[in-house]
Amino acid sequence: MASSKPPRGMRDFLPDQVRKRDYVIGVIKSVYEKYGFEPLETPAVENLSTLSNKYGEEGDQLMYKILKRGEKLSKKLESGQVRNENDLSDLALRYDLTVPLARVMANYRNELPRFFKRYQIQPVWRADRPARGRFREFYQCDVDAIGSRSMLVEAELCTAVCEILEGLGFDDYLIKLNNRVLLFAILESAGIEAGVRDQSVVILDKLEKIGPQKVIEALCRIGVSAAAADSLLGLFSDLGKLTVGETISAISAFAKDSSAAQEALKEIGEVAELSGIERLKVDCSLARGLSYYTGAIIEVVLTGGDFSGSVAGGGRYDELIGMFGKEEIPAVGLSIGLERIILIMEERGMFPESITTSGADVLVTLWNEDAAADSLKLASELRSAGKRVLVYPEPDKLGKQFKYADQIGVKTVCVLGESEIKDKTVTIKNLKTGNQETVSRETAAEAIDTALK
Amino acid sequence: MASSKPPRGMRDFLPDQVRKRDYVIGVIKSVYEKYGFEPLETPAVENLSTLSNKYGEEGDQLMYKILKRGEKLSKKLESGQVRNENDLSDLALRYDLTVPLARVMANYRNELPRFFKRYQIQPVWRADRPARGRFREFYQCDVDAIGSRSMLVEAELCTAVCEILEGLGFDDYLIKLNNRVLLFAILESAGIEAGVRDQSVVILDKLEKIGPQKVIEALCRIGVSAAAADSLLGLFSDLGKLTVGETISAISAFAKDSSAAQEALKEIGEVAELSGIERLKVDCSLARGLSYYTGAIIEVVLTGGDFSGSVAGGGRYDELIGMFGKEEIPAVGLSIGLERIILIMEERGMFPESITTSGADVLVTLWNEDAAADSLKLASELRSAGKRVLVYPEPDKLGKQFKYADQIGVKTVCVLGESEIKDKTVTIKNLKTGNQETVSRETAAEAIDTALK
Repeated sequence: MASSKPPRGMRDFLPDQVRKRDYVIGVIKSVYEKYGFEPLETPAVENLSTLSNKYGEEGDQLMYKILKRGEKLSKKLESGQVRNENDLSDLALRYDLTVPLARVMANYRNELPRFFKRYQIQPVWRADRPARGRFREFYQCDVDAIGSRSMLVEAELCTAVCEILEGLGFDDYLIKLNNRVLLFAILESAGIEAGVRDQSVVILDKLEKIGPQKVIEALCRIGVSAAAADSLLGLFSDLGKLTVGETISAISAFAKDSSAAQEALKEIGEVAELSGIERLKVDCSLARGLSYYTGAIIEVVLTGGDFSGSVAGGGRYDELIGMFGKEEIPAVGLSIGLERIILIMEERGMFPESITTSGADVLVTLWNEDAAADSLKLASELRSAGKRVLVYPEPDKLGKQFKYADQIGVKTVCVLGESEIKDKTVTIKNLKTGNQETVSRETAAEAIDTALK
Repeated sequence: MASSKPPRGMRDFLPDQVRKRDYVIGVIKSVYEKYGFEPLETPAVENLSTLSNKYGEEGDQLMYKILKRGEKLSKKLESGQVRNENDLSDLALRYDLTVPLARVMANYRNELPRFFKRYQIQPVWRADRPARGRFREFYQCDVDAIGSRSMLVEAELCTAVCEILEGLGFDDYLIKLNNRVLLFAILESAGIEAGVRDQSVVILDKLEKIGPQKVIEALCRIGVSAAAADSLLGLFSDLGKLTVGETISAISAFAKDSSAAQEALKEIGEVAELSGIERLKVDCSLARGLSYYTGAIIEVVLTGGDFSGSVAGGGRYDELIGMFGKEEIPAVGLSIGLERIILIMEERGMFPESITTSGADVLVTLWNEDAAADSLKLASELRSAGKRVLVYPEPDKLGKQFKYADQIGVKTVCVLGESEIKDKTVTIKNLKTGNQETVSRETAAEAIDTALK
């Protein structure tokens, strides 16, 4: 007999889990919709040529490729000339949501508005080694504003993500803001040579994790002078507890000779001011590993509880979205770590009770086969009143029907026994308290509301 | 440059299309939830061993198989011993939602309720030849009630699907009901030999399409006697315009010696009575091609308009869901043709206007860069009042901003010019009528409501 397990690293979502996921996705969607972002969906499968060489060597390895079909495959196999995967595969599973967005921007240029604000919440697949919180099928949740270089766009993205986190019940989030141009200008002002700045960024990104001393050591190892490393880390130690305005002043003084730095600082100041977010910090060590950012770099972290770390991140990448077309298209985007947020909300017990309990409000009992029409009629009345109603499908003993309702987490049972059917009444039993009362059919929905309170 | 098209037979869904799809899915979900069905989601990818040999030879050919990765693949290729697809593939894309359900039933036996009512709305993939309305990635929308043999379950499934179709605005649907046991009992009573009954069912299923004369000819060609064929078709010509009760009586008389037929007719009568559906017809020619039905066979058709045909179908299949376990698990299910329903609703213009128009209620203009904070603040106030608000991101000429709003289908523009900012007012312009009025900031949301009416 075949195994009944899902593939390694992939998950079945039973009803309670689907409800939790839908709840989080619902909050995210409703905030994005309020900000005028619009939903986009692309196929799970892309042409291999669309995805190849877009994610570096690691990406090409972790991508799920789909076998060619029919004659295309059999001819290739018969030829005995199978040299590599591309001979066997023509399609692959979606690896992220950014490349499909770039493809869509090129393909529907004339159908999409000049300023295209889209969100996309869909699964992606990576043949990564599974680990706690890391899956081979997982949802990405991307929001991007395309077509404008205005800082207003960065500001709105930051405001929207705060509203989402607050909507989900988080109160310990912090928006970290940096700018790629500023980062490099600071390195220059500190006296770090152009040739090692890329490497220096990667090292500096670890400042919070490994501390200043180890950063200085690592910088010196790649050839940064001790004076330059000290100068750089000196700046960071000064920034510690400063406000946004004070941080900007301090960096401005440090990089006073760099017009690029002054321009980037102006941009950061604008985003901070326009977004009006209090829980915002300028963090010039932030690089987020990705080399495609061209301006703002944004990271959203949680600071409290057992878990602290990134739950969303993004930035401006003006040179990426145009990859399938002829022109450069400015863009700024954020990706929310949906799987991580769901995990943290579970650990912190943040899901509302109404989400985590059974799907039905009430179970209607079945007295005997002849009473089925009566039970269905009552169910129909209750559904018309907006209730989610299960009808017990078989004429079992009442005790068994109560026990079943209790097992599946339904809190109220409508008993429709011989006398109730005769009298056109219903007995409503609250399984939690054990209380029950017999009411007229017309008032049943109301009585359930009272019992559910 | 790589192509910017999605793979052949697969679709990108731009915002308006996503909204339409979400609308239909939302109606379906809300009805199923009211009936106590619960959401289930399974991975897009399944182990190849889970899906192999489950869908016949055609299914194995149309299935998208995923290439093995890393060493597993390279070793196989180096060995030069690639005999077939299974040497190259270990995973495949979901082909339907029934086999994953059967797998889930076996894997979570103790976590799932005895009567498991689930709905599942997810894409499946088939490497079929693309055609109008036929795609290689398409959504299936399945609802199944598992664990009971009671006809109450069939009745509820039929009622729910009617409620969905009415909720979407269809008034020309018809529920066709048959029973596999009855179908074979009728063939027996007509005098058709056991050995050709399977083939006869397939022929009879085409009755509506090809007419009685061609059915008789086809039956005779496979060896059915002319007398038996005439007897069978005689029954069907009698049934034409009969009510449910009259149909049951007529068939009961025709198959009076078959206790199986009498039992199946009792079941059909029960479903018809318990569901209380007026638009219901007993159609004993209905077979729906699938051999796995064991009892009720249900098909939902639309009868009016340019399009007539099936939009949902299903039945009872008591021997299928247990395939990954040791015991037989009774089940009855329906699949709604989501893609077809969306297509028909588009053709018939059935989507509410609120769904088919732009995502934003209002666009806030940007006067100049210094006014960005004011525009964002107004947007924030309007969002708090529940509006979906776009802020024009760049300080273009007002005329250009109006034109943009009009292009993307936003009906109302909030103008925040120099004088409005000074006076703490907003000018609200209805793009459809051209009317505009200047109101205080506090009453802006209200004024937009009036303008949108």
